[in-house]
Amino acid sequence: MLQAESRRVREALIAKLRDILPRQFVLTETEQLRPYECDGLTAYRQLPWIVVLPSNREEVEKILALCTACGVPVVARGAGTGLSGGALPHPHGVLLSMTRLDRILSVDRANRTARVQPGVRNIAISEEVEGMGLYYAPDPSSQIACSIGGNVAENSGGVHCLKYGLTVHNILKLEVVLMSGESVTIGADALDMPGYDLLALMTGSEGMLGVVTEVTVRLLPKPAVARVILAAFDDLAMAGNAVAAIIGAGIIPAGLEMMDNPAIRAAEDFVHAGYPRDAAALLLCELDGTESEVEAGIRVVTRILELQGATEIRVATDEAERQRFWSGRKNAFPAVGRISPDYYCIDGTIPKKRLGEVLTGISKLSNEYDLRVANVFHAGDGNLHPLILYDGGQPGEFERTEALGGKILELCIAVGGTITGEHGVGVEKLNQMCVQFEAPELDQFHAIKKAFDPAALLNPGKAVPTLARCAEFNAMHVHKGRLPFPELPRF
Amino acid sequence: MLQAESRRVREALIAKLRDILPRQFVLTETEQLRPYECDGLTAYRQLPWIVVLPSNREEVEKILALCTACGVPVVARGAGTGLSGGALPHPHGVLLSMTRLDRILSVDRANRTARVQPGVRNIAISEEVEGMGLYYAPDPSSQIACSIGGNVAENSGGVHCLKYGLTVHNILKLEVVLMSGESVTIGADALDMPGYDLLALMTGSEGMLGVVTEVTVRLLPKPAVARVILAAFDDLAMAGNAVAAIIGAGIIPAGLEMMDNPAIRAAEDFVHAGYPRDAAALLLCELDGTESEVEAGIRVVTRILELQGATEIRVATDEAERQRFWSGRKNAFPAVGRISPDYYCIDGTIPKKRLGEVLTGISKLSNEYDLRVANVFHAGDGNLHPLILYDGGQPGEFERTEALGGKILELCIAVGGTITGEHGVGVEKLNQMCVQFEAPELDQFHAIKKAFDPAALLNPGKAVPTLARCAEFNAMHVHKGRLPFPELPRF
Repeated sequence: MLQAESRRVREALIAKLRDILPRQFVLTETEQLRPYECDGLTAYRQLPWIVVLPSNREEVEKILALCTACGVPVVARGAGTGLSGGALPHPHGVLLSMTRLDRILSVDRANRTARVQPGVRNIAISEEVEGMGLYYAPDPSSQIACSIGGNVAENSGGVHCLKYGLTVHNILKLEVVLMSGESVTIGADALDMPGYDLLALMTGSEGMLGVVTEVTVRLLPKPAVARVILAAFDDLAMAGNAVAAIIGAGIIPAGLEMMDNPAIRAAEDFVHAGYPRDAAALLLCELDGTESEVEAGIRVVTRILELQGATEIRVATDEAERQRFWSGRKNAFPAVGRISPDYYCIDGTIPKKRLGEVLTGISKLSNEYDLRVANVFHAGDGNLHPLILYDGGQPGEFERTEALGGKILELCIAVGGTITGEHGVGVEKLNQMCVQFEAPELDQFHAIKKAFDPAALLNPGKAVPTLARCAEFNAMHVHKGRLPFPELPRF
Repeated sequence: MLQAESRRVREALIAKLRDILPRQFVLTETEQLRPYECDGLTAYRQLPWIVVLPSNREEVEKILALCTACGVPVVARGAGTGLSGGALPHPHGVLLSMTRLDRILSVDRANRTARVQPGVRNIAISEEVEGMGLYYAPDPSSQIACSIGGNVAENSGGVHCLKYGLTVHNILKLEVVLMSGESVTIGADALDMPGYDLLALMTGSEGMLGVVTEVTVRLLPKPAVARVILAAFDDLAMAGNAVAAIIGAGIIPAGLEMMDNPAIRAAEDFVHAGYPRDAAALLLCELDGTESEVEAGIRVVTRILELQGATEIRVATDEAERQRFWSGRKNAFPAVGRISPDYYCIDGTIPKKRLGEVLTGISKLSNEYDLRVANVFHAGDGNLHPLILYDGGQPGEFERTEALGGKILELCIAVGGTITGEHGVGVEKLNQMCVQFEAPELDQFHAIKKAFDPAALLNPGKAVPTLARCAEFNAMHVHKGRLPFPELPRF
């Protein structure tokens, strides 16, 4: 688009948006737009054309209908805590901030559900229903800040998703505005639903199919008791075997986390959780339920850990000790941040039995690329979070980091895993999607996109690469860290 | 299509199919086609044009590509145990029987998964891995006969899905042939998957989107102990409250089933399970896990049942008694078949707290339509199975039965429920889909269908009604039990 023409379209659009929203909720000045230029993946930045802040579904409907009429792209944004650039603005598009839709509309205690708007923070739901002995189970690390709408877009997990499932397993119904401006209700207040499973399709679709304006979440009764076991190992593979043995015994821990030595040291030095600094691996295994269930579980898990060669086993004796055991794991990312100018968090999943060889592979790649890696992971799920330590101030080091990250993800795929457990594809992993999928599968994704958004105006260029991009990537098989926009159809 | 032209197309197609398959696997004679004219919903019957029995994916690909080239509809069929007519043949179409793809390809003990072909019977998977202490959790009543491919098409549940989930929660990966003849792999061997959730979309899509040629299922370790509690109540509502109280206490039973007095009597007279014949309601609550977990659970559940006013509580003391307690529930359908010439099984779900009013409503409708109803249900899931007793020999009685069934489903929708928990829509519930969904939602379903099967050749006329049909139904709001074919585009 020529610059003058572009300016004209933008001015006309701003005028029409101001017919829909009060003036202060249509942001157009550079200093107002700046806070929206990136999400948690700060390596990618782009100022949006315009930011709008609607407060209800009707306004969202009108905004999307208007943008469809004008052929202008729209990117929806929750709290902006995403780690894959899913909320990166479009340079000639509207950034739709959902933060003003922030009300908990109703809580149904008998059916154990709550209707909430998408801008409600994850933790706010549990806080609201705490007095009823209930909580909302998915608990991403960012749960203090992240919004439930963003959780739906990314199908967020967390430490407790091993037992309680991902976002898709903890929601019942969605109200969604399509790019046409039309609204649909997906799911129901009761089990299952006829027709195609659009609830699962929408969950984790990274803002590509529709804009969620209301979520009905399931609530769970808070377990009477939760206790955590800490176990140290001399050897990463032995810790991996212990994970397999615990799951294999039919135990479903509320959480089962693993850290390697660099992560243990960083965390211990930061929060003094009492971790054994010299252990090669550390497991944290939480059990919850009734008093007698948890006691029984602790006995079985302790016995398994002994048999698997743990060098040290400690059961938290009270809530304070439980919190201390967890504090190291929960602060592992900032702890790693202290020992390196920058770090890059990778997110991949693998079949659990391949853990040993993948860790060995990561270690080899770490040497090859001359970059340190600390490993923290949801071991029970096979969801790895290697943290690559680098210095963004050194020329070429971020590019080497991105390349190493790509190689780690390709290793995950090679053993039968996936390129993202919970952080999404966004703009970050478009190239790895070319490795994960074949052309007919990508074609099918594009057909789904078209079924919801024929003009490809909603969050374009994210999540699913074009076949042209994949052809180029597969031919060159190098990572360039390019923005996806050059590939978008011109408008 | 004119009859002569139709005959010509059929002959040409048969010749080409015989290039793909050995002669004996292309069935064309009426007596060969007869066994395929209906599935478990025997009220609807239709002879297919041709039946083909491929034995591998390559043959399925060739058959679908051929049918696409000729514009001929295809209906895939598993074991034919479906209850909503999803496998009802098309009068001018190919019936694709998947029964020869019946091999368990591999079992991965460490990852607890198995790769199986779609024609493998549900129970055969558990039998195969029994020696490893593993099993496949979803257990529809038809599990001795039904196939895993059909389970995926219908997203089948069963008594144990309260704790262990539906089919969609117990599969990891699918190999699917699209109507174009192209194959795609959906899902992965590890947790989660980038891209849209096609695994969930495909599961429960009733053969409308693709033909499954391989399924990777999750296997679970068999629980060490399973015990069942039987409780009798003087009042249906009190039993309903007990269900809510058990779930509300944070207990997740392996199964939680309820029967009303007509069902109790029929079952007791048939299998002598030791049920209290005069009880208004009977609950069966199974707990599984480790010895100590189950003991703890039994104590809590027994206490809740006492508080909720159970008139009798019995805990099965050994495996033989456990099996006897279950025998009545498992044989409830044939038991009802003994006390009535015919019965019609309805399948709907409701939010659990609405149970009392829905049962009262069913009782009123039963009087209004002058037809007896016995209720058997997955109480923990809110999944009802009212059985309408009728005599197909009496003129007009089946039509009245269908109308009553429709009204019961509409009652489920009115309280926030759905028209099918596990049996699917098929041809049976097309009209109720018009009540469940609004036009924009049905439009979205059709767009999804088009994204997979643009020419609408795969199982046409099932699962999602046309907007024209809904307009007509909503205008007249009567049930006609018509076959859907008159609405199909002519070809």
